[in-house]
Amino acid sequence: MASLGAHKKKHKVAVIGSGNWGTTIAKVIAENTAEHGDLFEEEVRMWVFEEEVTVPKDSPDYDPGSELCSKPQKLTFVINTLKENVKYLPGVPLPKNIQANPSIEETVKDATILIFNLPHQFISKTCDSIRGKVLPYARGVSCIKGVDVSDQGIELFSESIGRKLGIYCGALSGANIASEVAKEKWSETTVAYDPPSMDSRQPTPEGSPRHSIEINVTEGNEAPKSRHSAYKLTALPADYPPLSHENMKQLFHRPYFHVRMTDDVAGVSLGGALKNVVALAAGWVDGLGWGDNAKAAVMRVGIMEEVKFGRLFFSDSAKPQTFTEESCGVADMITSCSGGRNFRCAKLSVVKKKPINEIEAEELNGQKLQGTSTAYEVNEFLRSKRMENEFPLFTSVYKILEGKNQPQDIPWLLEGRASAKM
Amino acid sequence: MASLGAHKKKHKVAVIGSGNWGTTIAKVIAENTAEHGDLFEEEVRMWVFEEEVTVPKDSPDYDPGSELCSKPQKLTFVINTLKENVKYLPGVPLPKNIQANPSIEETVKDATILIFNLPHQFISKTCDSIRGKVLPYARGVSCIKGVDVSDQGIELFSESIGRKLGIYCGALSGANIASEVAKEKWSETTVAYDPPSMDSRQPTPEGSPRHSIEINVTEGNEAPKSRHSAYKLTALPADYPPLSHENMKQLFHRPYFHVRMTDDVAGVSLGGALKNVVALAAGWVDGLGWGDNAKAAVMRVGIMEEVKFGRLFFSDSAKPQTFTEESCGVADMITSCSGGRNFRCAKLSVVKKKPINEIEAEELNGQKLQGTSTAYEVNEFLRSKRMENEFPLFTSVYKILEGKNQPQDIPWLLEGRASAKM
Repeated sequence: MASLGAHKKKHKVAVIGSGNWGTTIAKVIAENTAEHGDLFEEEVRMWVFEEEVTVPKDSPDYDPGSELCSKPQKLTFVINTLKENVKYLPGVPLPKNIQANPSIEETVKDATILIFNLPHQFISKTCDSIRGKVLPYARGVSCIKGVDVSDQGIELFSESIGRKLGIYCGALSGANIASEVAKEKWSETTVAYDPPSMDSRQPTPEGSPRHSIEINVTEGNEAPKSRHSAYKLTALPADYPPLSHENMKQLFHRPYFHVRMTDDVAGVSLGGALKNVVALAAGWVDGLGWGDNAKAAVMRVGIMEEVKFGRLFFSDSAKPQTFTEESCGVADMITSCSGGRNFRCAKLSVVKKKPINEIEAEELNGQKLQGTSTAYEVNEFLRSKRMENEFPLFTSVYKILEGKNQPQDIPWLLEGRASAKM
Repeated sequence: MASLGAHKKKHKVAVIGSGNWGTTIAKVIAENTAEHGDLFEEEVRMWVFEEEVTVPKDSPDYDPGSELCSKPQKLTFVINTLKENVKYLPGVPLPKNIQANPSIEETVKDATILIFNLPHQFISKTCDSIRGKVLPYARGVSCIKGVDVSDQGIELFSESIGRKLGIYCGALSGANIASEVAKEKWSETTVAYDPPSMDSRQPTPEGSPRHSIEINVTEGNEAPKSRHSAYKLTALPADYPPLSHENMKQLFHRPYFHVRMTDDVAGVSLGGALKNVVALAAGWVDGLGWGDNAKAAVMRVGIMEEVKFGRLFFSDSAKPQTFTEESCGVADMITSCSGGRNFRCAKLSVVKKKPINEIEAEELNGQKLQGTSTAYEVNEFLRSKRMENEFPLFTSVYKILEGKNQPQDIPWLLEGRASAKM
């Protein structure tokens, strides 16, 4: 690391979002900025959508004698004072170097690394509020799972963030449940980071990315929703340590949170979205009592359809190995098909013989299943390409949701394509 | 299939072994020979190691008034009369065209396809008993899981069968539990079949295999235990339908048992052996209460070490995709790490804080865990190659079994290699 000492500046990191996953990632990052002072400023700013909270009595920081605990307080004040997000990550002590901030403009000011970790429906508005207020050479990483799919095409959340802010944005996804990572239970994750090489310095400021980031998200589609190539990226000044894979890994890797780096932003993002569709099928099959082998078969076919989806629609970027070998692919598939909410609700719908939307209403307290909406969106997209038959599992999930088929039809629905190479 | 009508002869199939998996595969095959009369003789002979049995009172075929049920009978007689293997697959009706036979010589006589499905410790003796008594152009498929690993090298069971009988032998493996397949619960499997092209007829009798079957089982090893090249294979006469992938698939594929064909015999065999080592680690991690993500991480790393093992030691045959994309790889890994006996005993050893051999004795009624013996064999082999550090998960399982490490050490044992590309 001796050569890094030559850099005058360090990276300043801002986390945008403070739900349970956002706060967890801020904890991970703050532990790392404290350890890697050669690369990063120690303080990590975390943007908090301000609200009033009362410190719960079961919080380890609850003190009945203190003024802070006797009446409602601002969430940022509570986080900064108690070093605990009592509302969204209760019971988990946060590093001292996390600074909660209710102003998103202040949070992102001068930050060279922006970590996006908020519900996807807030991406657009949030980016609008900081457009032109981030460093032109800032780099982003989206920890938001999923992609934006419609018959118009597919846009990755990292792409829409990048496009709105005029910056490069990578992605983090893996077999991670926020509460387990927060408790430092071991898991793995995948970080995709592959900004284009944009100047002639040797080495390039970002290491040596293998290919351009111009992602053909809409192959065969008349109306591409976005292109990274539509705006010009600004090179990271040489004052800063390069944001190579090695250095980006230092920001996320912990003894309990193992990181593998990749340059496949599309694959990482797709895996996090499509596995929810597969989890519904796994839940149905499990609900039928067909056992672990049938469930494993659903997962295997699901991974293969992810690979094919990547190959057909992100041919210049998504790699098969991202789905078959990485945490964001096979491992996230396994976890989601073992006990996630899509799996559980689908299983209950078979066991209780009720439509899945009734189970959703009973079980999820107003929240919605990601798998059902993604299944409809993916089907709309595939239908627009006349490719429903190429993806028999995704299509069978849609047909079962629509009541056109039953869960017990899955084997023969898949067999219709068994002779084709998937 | 019109062109197949030109063949004068049909394939005669013999199943060697009649335990629960052997009987299940005989059932699958007999259903298919009855359906595909253009390719196969309808009758399927099944060799039964003769013993006396009493028809249990809970058998659906039990008839208190019958002489057959009133006293001990020969197992072959019971199977052929009741069409049920009351001892090893009770309660499952067998197709009428299965013919149980206590003579292994009669069973294999004139058979062109030999299906091996018996405990691995009986392979050698069984092959000795039929050496020179099988058709020289017979073809085998081994359904026996595992490989024979030692510091002398690695031999696939299909290889030792082939070598002993002077025939080509492929392999079947997948996420299959006999009792579930027998009950026609849906699952998938992988059949590896890739005999060498051995004459100049067009098309070749076996289709067009992509490469020679000379498997370098002992790369870097001074004393290869076997080579397919050490004996000469006899071409299948043109009187028979070719044993192409398409035709072999007809022998195994059922609506409830989906087959994918491959030419990677080594990969299919290795997957079935190595996953048992990984299942121990998954069980330990689960026993620690680390959750689904940690378990998925163990499986992911396990699949990657399988890929690496195949690449290093079967470089001219094993393919990464066999482990990452096929039922015999990723799906069997998932199933074995979800509830197989290796997983369960390892988990219990952590929960009950007992050595795994005590749990094995308590839980398995005298049977032995495959995972522990394979972990020791694989370690012996890796040590002989000085490659223990290249396989941190396999090696950590060995070290934990030896008491040199604890299950909670797994993350940092893996992290020691996290920077290396696995």
